[in-house]
Amino acid sequence: MLLTRRASFSASHRTDSAEARGVERDAGPAAARVHGHNYVVEVTVAGSVDEATGMLMDLKELKDVLDREVISRFDHRNLDVDTPYFRGRASTAENVATVIFELLDAALPPGRLCGVRLSPTEDLCVEVRR
Amino acid sequence: MLLTRRASFSASHRTDSAEARGVERDAGPAAARVHGHNYVVEVTVAGSVDEATGMLMDLKELKDVLDREVISRFDHRNLDVDTPYFRGRASTAENVATVIFELLDAALPPGRLCGVRLSPTEDLCVEVRR
Amino acid sequence: MLLTRRASFSASHRTDSAEARGVERDAGPAAARVHGHNYVVEVTVAGSVDEATGMLMDLKELKDVLDREVISRFDHRNLDVDTPYFRGRASTAENVATVIFELLDAALPPGRLCGVRLSPTEDLCVEVRR
Amino acid sequence: MLLTRRASFSASHRTDSAEARGVERDAGPAAARVHGHNYVVEVTVAGSVDEATGMLMDLKELKDVLDREVISRFDHRNLDVDTPYFRGRASTAENVATVIFELLDAALPPGRLCGVRLSPTEDLCVEVRR
Amino acid sequence: MLLTRRASFSASHRTDSAEARGVERDAGPAAARVHGHNYVVEVTVAGSVDEATGMLMDLKELKDVLDREVISRFDHRNLDVDTPYFRGRASTAENVATVIFELLDAALPPGRLCGVRLSPTEDLCVEVRR
Amino acid sequence: MLLTRRASFSASHRTDSAEARGVERDAGPAAARVHGHNYVVEVTVAGSVDEATGMLMDLKELKDVLDREVISRFDHRNLDVDTPYFRGRASTAENVATVIFELLDAALPPGRLCGVRLSPTEDLCVEVRR
Repeated sequence: MLLTRRASFSASHRTDSAEARGVERDAGPAAARVHGHNYVVEVTVAGSVDEATGMLMDLKELKDVLDREVISRFDHRNLDVDTPYFRGRASTAENVATVIFELLDAALPPGRLCGVRLSPTEDLCVEVRR
Repeated sequence: MLLTRRASFSASHRTDSAEARGVERDAGPAAARVHGHNYVVEVTVAGSVDEATGMLMDLKELKDVLDREVISRFDHRNLDVDTPYFRGRASTAENVATVIFELLDAALPPGRLCGVRLSPTEDLCVEVRR
Repeated sequence: MLLTRRASFSASHRTDSAEARGVERDAGPAAARVHGHNYVVEVTVAGSVDEATGMLMDLKELKDVLDREVISRFDHRNLDVDTPYFRGRASTAENVATVIFELLDAALPPGRLCGVRLSPTEDLCVEVRR
Repeated sequence: MLLTRRASFSASHRTDSAEARGVERDAGPAAARVHGHNYVVEVTVAGSVDEATGMLMDLKELKDVLDREVISRFDHRNLDVDTPYFRGRASTAENVATVIFELLDAALPPGRLCGVRLSPTEDLCVEVRR
Repeated sequence: MLLTRRASFSASHRTDSAEARGVERDAGPAAARVHGHNYVVEVTVAGSVDEATGMLMDLKELKDVLDREVISRFDHRNLDVDTPYFRGRASTAENVATVIFELLDAALPPGRLCGVRLSPTEDLCVEVRR
Repeated sequence: MLLTRRASFSASHRTDSAEARGVERDAGPAAARVHGHNYVVEVTVAGSVDEATGMLMDLKELKDVLDREVISRFDHRNLDVDTPYFRGRASTAENVATVIFELLDAALPPGRLCGVRLSPTEDLCVEVRR
């Protein structure tokens, strides 16, 4: 049994190293400019259903972890400037998803987190699976 | 090869056992009241493609099973009162998805059903996999 | 200039007067049963942009009015039982939209409210315009 | 007869004047930080259908105007820094929509442009009508 | 008060007159080939709410008219070959919307029909208003 | 780590062999007529993130492959007549997805392609996994 919760945050970022520019190469010469997205994040936890409650996990608890670990850190931020996670690495969708996976994995009960999907736009999605 | 068909039904439910209340705890004090959702259900079957027809399974047959086993039983119903499935257990998304999986698994050819996803709202999804 | 804010609430209702049953006639004999929807409500206000702020209306204020007047009254409720608005009239989409329009119109500055759209399902929408 | 074309661009912005901060007040203390959105823009033109072509307006021409006047100027940009339009005014949704209306109105045949809708997020929409 | 009902049909068409080609010019040299769309149609009727029923119009009746006049004629058809409506004119979105408006206007009570919106793709929409 | 890119194409097709007709049997007697869809295709590649670039794969390269191998061949075409892939087999969703998988698998670095999902309508999806 899997349970997935969806949330979103609005953030800006810049992909400015020579190597990283390719990730935004679709945009042509504008690639290195600071732009932004309404990122959609989907968090999936795995487990079995507790017979007494009928729940895999308390939804409110999952929402609180997601709000505290992800939304409150990334929403209305410049990912490169206002967070410490992309100092040594480009804020590509792949790296943002990896950071989110690590933040949630540390906050949830061990082994609970199954995967994280991150969509910077409706045509692109990266997924980190355990 | 996987084939997924999507349908939806509008139902009401009440989560009123002390233990189950947490599942709707987002709503605060209103948690135990009868409310409702447009549930979206996605049924996935697995198999190989029949060379003569180019089909994994007859789409019309899959739709008929879904209509008969799920939509006709749950649409425009109070899940707790008008169906027999939640007498002994809370009508949480997890339990509703499990009931749907069992109903479809019994009606489809053995081993065909691969998984069921149920979304009570666009921000929440539970998935039962074989 | 128009500004529209979208929100949603999950509620149940019963359309049980002989006359009102038609509204749910799509569902066949199940029509009079208590069922539910994830209602999507879109509130539109009209006005001109304040030059100093660049805003037609404070978004936070509009969200607060919507939360207080609509979401907190209808979310996770049985519209017929848990609210006082549908004692004398059927809780059809038309009547629910009218009640929402009246609640918002009384709470917003005079003449601000331009229209309310309510969608019980993704295939149906009713709109009340001033 | 109306014809509407939808496009989107990813941009960042900062609402940093004391007065404008309210527009992002939802976000709490993060309000003045540079963040971003996948803006969805919908352009509506009015007219009658040319009998010979069956068209209100050449779709390719409308797309070209939209790409040249809006997408190429705003996509992958910081609206406040990389464009000249928000030097003297806050880059609120209302002001961005107004700038887009003016750019398109100057580029399209006189009187053709009927309205512009801009959605910074799926829960918010501003509309400029002639 | 307005009431809108949404439905869709899957049809193919060819825009092959020299003048009409522009409408599909986005597609480059492929313009005149037979292709297809999942057309989304939204029908809006206007009126006041009947106090006894709480309804503007019987939803089932509106659905029946839409099914009979539009879906049954256009779904799984080649608009140019299998219907009589585009013999003398190109099957552009504008002309298809106009035909749908005329079919529905003749079938609904006089003056009821308020407008028809037709979307061949999610980025394009034409609207016929009375 | 998985990366998914979404695109769409508008095509027509006919399912006219006796065996294949079932796939469109939903449509009743209209089944064998040429109709069309806005097909949505989602391509998933698997791999690890390059530390220097922060990318699993160059997004522009993936888009180019998708445009060249799929969109340019299928968009605005009659799948049965204008492409060579469905001469000996029905253009069912299953077969179209298989052809797309094969075309992409041959064009991408060996082992990169993880799966292809194809949705002819929003209620149906077939998925080919390696």
